[in-house]
Amino acid sequence: MTIYNFSAGPAVLPKPVLETAQSEMLDYKGSGMSVMELSHRSSWFQAIIDDAENLLRDLMKIPENYQVLFLQGGASLQFTKIPLNFAQNKKALYVNTGSWSKKAIQAAEALDNVTVEVIASSEDQNFTYIPEIPANVDQDAAYVHITTNNTIEGTAYQSIPNFGKVPVVADMSSNILANDYNVEDFGVIYAGAQKNIGPAGLTVVIIRDDLLGESDISAPMLDYTLLAKNDSLYNTPPTYAIYVAKLVFEWLQEQGGVAGITAQDQAKSKLLYDAIEASELFKSPVRADSRSLTNIPFVTGNDELDKKFNQEALAYGFENLKGHRSVGGMRASLYNAFPVEGVNELVTFMEKFEAENGGK
Amino acid sequence: MTIYNFSAGPAVLPKPVLETAQSEMLDYKGSGMSVMELSHRSSWFQAIIDDAENLLRDLMKIPENYQVLFLQGGASLQFTKIPLNFAQNKKALYVNTGSWSKKAIQAAEALDNVTVEVIASSEDQNFTYIPEIPANVDQDAAYVHITTNNTIEGTAYQSIPNFGKVPVVADMSSNILANDYNVEDFGVIYAGAQKNIGPAGLTVVIIRDDLLGESDISAPMLDYTLLAKNDSLYNTPPTYAIYVAKLVFEWLQEQGGVAGITAQDQAKSKLLYDAIEASELFKSPVRADSRSLTNIPFVTGNDELDKKFNQEALAYGFENLKGHRSVGGMRASLYNAFPVEGVNELVTFMEKFEAENGGK
Repeated sequence: MTIYNFSAGPAVLPKPVLETAQSEMLDYKGSGMSVMELSHRSSWFQAIIDDAENLLRDLMKIPENYQVLFLQGGASLQFTKIPLNFAQNKKALYVNTGSWSKKAIQAAEALDNVTVEVIASSEDQNFTYIPEIPANVDQDAAYVHITTNNTIEGTAYQSIPNFGKVPVVADMSSNILANDYNVEDFGVIYAGAQKNIGPAGLTVVIIRDDLLGESDISAPMLDYTLLAKNDSLYNTPPTYAIYVAKLVFEWLQEQGGVAGITAQDQAKSKLLYDAIEASELFKSPVRADSRSLTNIPFVTGNDELDKKFNQEALAYGFENLKGHRSVGGMRASLYNAFPVEGVNELVTFMEKFEAENGGK
Repeated sequence: MTIYNFSAGPAVLPKPVLETAQSEMLDYKGSGMSVMELSHRSSWFQAIIDDAENLLRDLMKIPENYQVLFLQGGASLQFTKIPLNFAQNKKALYVNTGSWSKKAIQAAEALDNVTVEVIASSEDQNFTYIPEIPANVDQDAAYVHITTNNTIEGTAYQSIPNFGKVPVVADMSSNILANDYNVEDFGVIYAGAQKNIGPAGLTVVIIRDDLLGESDISAPMLDYTLLAKNDSLYNTPPTYAIYVAKLVFEWLQEQGGVAGITAQDQAKSKLLYDAIEASELFKSPVRADSRSLTNIPFVTGNDELDKKFNQEALAYGFENLKGHRSVGGMRASLYNAFPVEGVNELVTFMEKFEAENGGK
């Protein structure tokens, strides 16, 4: 039985990446050591982290005036670090588009000296759409925070709104490298690695230089300026996760870079969205103009039928297809490494299920 | 050429652990997925983290009234979290025994509402010994912080001092599981994984229940109580590092547990210390009553000769034997996974070097 892993993260990785990691596990390039055993101060590891940075810069066309950091703590720790570094004694704007946006907002609100203003929200309709941004946002705000893709709800911005001169801080955890963004549209981009980059435990943060160095941070590990000055080596970084990320970046280059993989992602998601549209049983809970390429929820509208579908899907070899408890139904996460064959099989499986279980 | 990796961390791992990780890389126990690809909410991963916790509890005989957390951020992030969680509006005592103690002290001092008192220090003699603890330490202090083993300086407490009723918070990064400590002597134990536990990017924190829940923490990811309530799954943990740690814990059980491995560590370090004592060329910079089992610095007293030794050692296959820049000379880190054959070869190599280069 072929297993297809639809997990929202940690998620499927490219098979050639795992094969390389496997072959190099006991002896990295003749060093006699595993990558896990390399000192983070060694020239072996320095080459790995340098390569990872250069590959990511190349893939995303990151300009020289942006720092690229390989950190720990996930997006969740950045939720605190971002207001701490950029908005102390200032106002920060947030767009509330889902569970993760809410957590980012709550983390900022928990800080005494940060004023948080939510400028738009889609909470009124269970986050099933991307809300319109008001025309005139406060141009003195420290930043505006958006979640480019909402993993749980399956929504995504189709384009980055214009916020004037306010720096855009983007949680890109679930669609970094799956969308040909212009980095210069952002002040800060951050992403947990465990969806499109590599293993959990690594967080990539990309920061425009002029945003650094302004704040008084009472905790060294929360201070982006200090971490940037030390080139992500202020303390021991998650070395093995950085190595796997480097392998993923190399694989992405072989896929034609971000443009190449985005074309693949668009084709994969179209297969599934077309099947949902053609179906009389399955529906997308997401408004048509707000749909994500990477996280695609769908429901039958009948909890019992959803349950039956999920049971049969699991037995068939579709792992982690069950929807998040806050949305229900099913959710297919089609990240970069998810093979198109798996989408084709899912579509066939859905058609068969519909034939057997009738339309509504 | 056999490579022996004397790195102070990330450090050598047991070969059988790497072999298992290699064999399971593409398919974890028939799941059809790599451990890196498992959802952290899956039953597959839940079994891994449960096993890791239970194994560690068994190895260290951790009582039920202690929480075991698998976190991110290294010891460096705990340097801030510990005073934030346990000493806000209180006094915290610190013993200053080296570079890492100093960083812990500085991180506590950086917080506005924590009073830091350094009750003993060996900085006067470049941290070459463990200082005596004053008889009467403030019994109202929130905790006293010690570094059980000083990685850079090569010192270690030979026994845990009596601090009365003040909870002992121990940075055990470089000798956890290499010393048969009684967990009940401590209020908190924490350790970066990259020396005796597993890959970098994982931090183990062990906390006595009664210390939790008292403080107002303005950042979710810094709040031990919240992280404990969520059984280390408040956000996505470093799943692959936890898996490798579990394999290391299984390997440790096969070595006879902590008692068994400590006996091995004592034998290994005795080989090297005996060689240093017998030599007329090599000396330990550390006072005899304060020497570490896991990090053993030695010097010739002649910078040029140290340099020659390090060059020849590297050419022979001894990786990362060069001493930390603050101490100079050489440093052999003999963690649990370091093979005794490597110590024997080092001793033979030292004898040959001494014969060729004369005593002093």
